[in-house]
Amino acid sequence: MYKDLSFDELTQLENEIKKQYEDFKSQNLKLDMSRGKPCLEQLELSKGMLDTINSKSSLISKDGIDCLNYGGVDGLKETKEFFSQLLDVPFANVIVGGNSSLTMMFDYISQCYLRGSGGKPWGKMDKVKFLCPVPGYDRHFAICEYFGIEMVNVPMLSTGPDMDIVEELVKDDAVKGMVCVPKYSNPTGVTYSDDTVKRLSAMETASDFRIIWDNAYCIHHLSSNHDSLLDLLGECKNAGNPDRAIMVASLSKVTFPGSGVAVLAASENNIKMIKERLSVQTIGPDKINQIRHTEFFDGIDNVHKHMEKHAQIIAPRFDVVLKAFNKELRPHGIASWEEPNGGYFISLDVLDGCAKRVYELCKDAGVTLTECGATYPYGKDPFDRNIRIAPTFPSVEELEKATQLLCVCVKLASIEKLKMI
Amino acid sequence: MYKDLSFDELTQLENEIKKQYEDFKSQNLKLDMSRGKPCLEQLELSKGMLDTINSKSSLISKDGIDCLNYGGVDGLKETKEFFSQLLDVPFANVIVGGNSSLTMMFDYISQCYLRGSGGKPWGKMDKVKFLCPVPGYDRHFAICEYFGIEMVNVPMLSTGPDMDIVEELVKDDAVKGMVCVPKYSNPTGVTYSDDTVKRLSAMETASDFRIIWDNAYCIHHLSSNHDSLLDLLGECKNAGNPDRAIMVASLSKVTFPGSGVAVLAASENNIKMIKERLSVQTIGPDKINQIRHTEFFDGIDNVHKHMEKHAQIIAPRFDVVLKAFNKELRPHGIASWEEPNGGYFISLDVLDGCAKRVYELCKDAGVTLTECGATYPYGKDPFDRNIRIAPTFPSVEELEKATQLLCVCVKLASIEKLKMI
Repeated sequence: MYKDLSFDELTQLENEIKKQYEDFKSQNLKLDMSRGKPCLEQLELSKGMLDTINSKSSLISKDGIDCLNYGGVDGLKETKEFFSQLLDVPFANVIVGGNSSLTMMFDYISQCYLRGSGGKPWGKMDKVKFLCPVPGYDRHFAICEYFGIEMVNVPMLSTGPDMDIVEELVKDDAVKGMVCVPKYSNPTGVTYSDDTVKRLSAMETASDFRIIWDNAYCIHHLSSNHDSLLDLLGECKNAGNPDRAIMVASLSKVTFPGSGVAVLAASENNIKMIKERLSVQTIGPDKINQIRHTEFFDGIDNVHKHMEKHAQIIAPRFDVVLKAFNKELRPHGIASWEEPNGGYFISLDVLDGCAKRVYELCKDAGVTLTECGATYPYGKDPFDRNIRIAPTFPSVEELEKATQLLCVCVKLASIEKLKMI
Repeated sequence: MYKDLSFDELTQLENEIKKQYEDFKSQNLKLDMSRGKPCLEQLELSKGMLDTINSKSSLISKDGIDCLNYGGVDGLKETKEFFSQLLDVPFANVIVGGNSSLTMMFDYISQCYLRGSGGKPWGKMDKVKFLCPVPGYDRHFAICEYFGIEMVNVPMLSTGPDMDIVEELVKDDAVKGMVCVPKYSNPTGVTYSDDTVKRLSAMETASDFRIIWDNAYCIHHLSSNHDSLLDLLGECKNAGNPDRAIMVASLSKVTFPGSGVAVLAASENNIKMIKERLSVQTIGPDKINQIRHTEFFDGIDNVHKHMEKHAQIIAPRFDVVLKAFNKELRPHGIASWEEPNGGYFISLDVLDGCAKRVYELCKDAGVTLTECGATYPYGKDPFDRNIRIAPTFPSVEELEKATQLLCVCVKLASIEKLKMI
């Protein structure tokens, strides 16, 4: 353990590790571990979908809608059925959207600002606060910031957000929502426990409090060892708070990022309000892309098989990073992390005050990490300790090299820190 | 002329026409002239596009973006170039969006409510008013109504909105915008004159006044006789009001409604504000569909050739309606209409107070017209005289029958009215 070493021992170690660092630097690396996007092999898995629909296809939906023409504001019948099964929520609670679940969230919050979520329009309130489990997803925080929502950090535990704190904070009537990735969470990889979901569903809140449940990685397992997540919509209904849950998901990382299909599931009341908006905001989503997806998969079983192929490609990448961390960092007590069963990230906590230094050291040696602070509201990590690792896009070889360098940088930054104590 | 007939002459005529009407009624028709959507033959024109992109396609954009992955919030380089040429606006002023120009307008107005259009957020104002040239497009009015914008009617002339009235009304600081279809206008078919566009560009308004210029039918000519429309963006810039113009268009009625590509063009300032929002609202539009469109057309010349094929299909449908009107209605002085050179509609003005009666008579005989009032804000036609005819979707035969009935109904309602005077 580094913390047990004397100043002189640390200095000696520092000199050794500096040599390793300089060696990396001389290699003029140019590697990127910052991008949470699928790699080329993953994209290849779905290329067949581009042949599913062609000029010979009939393109009449199950309920008789011509997918080539106007009509159908909330999605094709077969695509709604598809998502109803995939998310295990009733058909009537599903709206199929365009290509982006982020947009469905943004537009929902925009709607709350103009029309309210069930009470007064949020835009007419002095202050709107959201709970943000941290570390969390930078794009969620960006949405909140765009609308001027005051974000309140809630620490993530291995069971999800610290519910004792959540239950206390929601007593404040200005707290109108929480936004989170409940399964294979971005970035920690944690899945919310049954107890967490039940408490989120049942806790006392303002009547127009909403949980934006971004189930982005619901089927993105890394192995046959699947986490399971309770259905928030059902739990909220059972707890007498049916309108609390706004769930979204998408096929962006199932087929093609940017050209997938997004979905929203919510209570009848919420669906009604959202459809009211949609019927003004659009003449309808891209139905050809919906039928392209449902025909390509032809059932939920095939989606799960498809996701297994994704796992075969990306699991080895996660292994590279986790093995290196276990070998290089664990013995020295200078970092902690979760070993996720799914999702797209590994969340590395280094010693407090060291994340920016690690980032800079990596950058100077040619490895790009996610910007420090990105996993916290307003880009401010109060402990300067969290680093989000995105292992899916680089090749295994690149990742091995980048992770080795990262470990060297963590060691160096840790020693510098410990020498100052 | 009916108005020159005596009461007894009108009664005699009424009896004759009633017989014609009853004859139609006995045919149990089921025809629809309400839907402004392309017919099946038109959709066939673009089916080849579904073969353009397949699993063998490279899908790397001109600027090196992988269309299968994340990236690019404002559209592919080639698709921006395509629209820049099509709309004759600079590349830097173009944002390519998703499948709906209606959504781009809605989202822009939503942005103005939250962030302002250049001044205070509209949501913080006591009142926001929009000028609405009437008759106009029901979905524009629906957007205004959704946001609680007070709509002020401005009569359409054969040169566009009555500019004397417009220039007077915009002196009111609460007037923040105008929303219109300037070319082959929905429903009158009128194209705004050069003088109208110049006056719109140069008139004194609140500094954050915006013109939502829905150029939906910019290339939708019915013959080789093309209307021409001045470029609002350029005119506003020349007049020292560069931020006034928010132009949108789409390929919805060029390729497939619901699966086309939409575009917005505006000043650098506006583009910056819109991109700021987009970078939070979405990870990007569907790039595969963008490349599918640009590759299918492979240049602007082919788009225009493609639109000529559309015209060959729909022009005969317009002819059927206009010929019948000229033969059956014009001699009697009981209706007026424009003969459009493009677009999707014919706007029929019957005698004041007769539109609803015509609608009911048609409905009872099995012909569906657009709901009366749809072409006016709040669904209220103050003169009860405007009927929007959508001739594109029905077959020529259906249209002939439906128009004959419509003429009979117009005659009957006119006689009933004239007998009461």
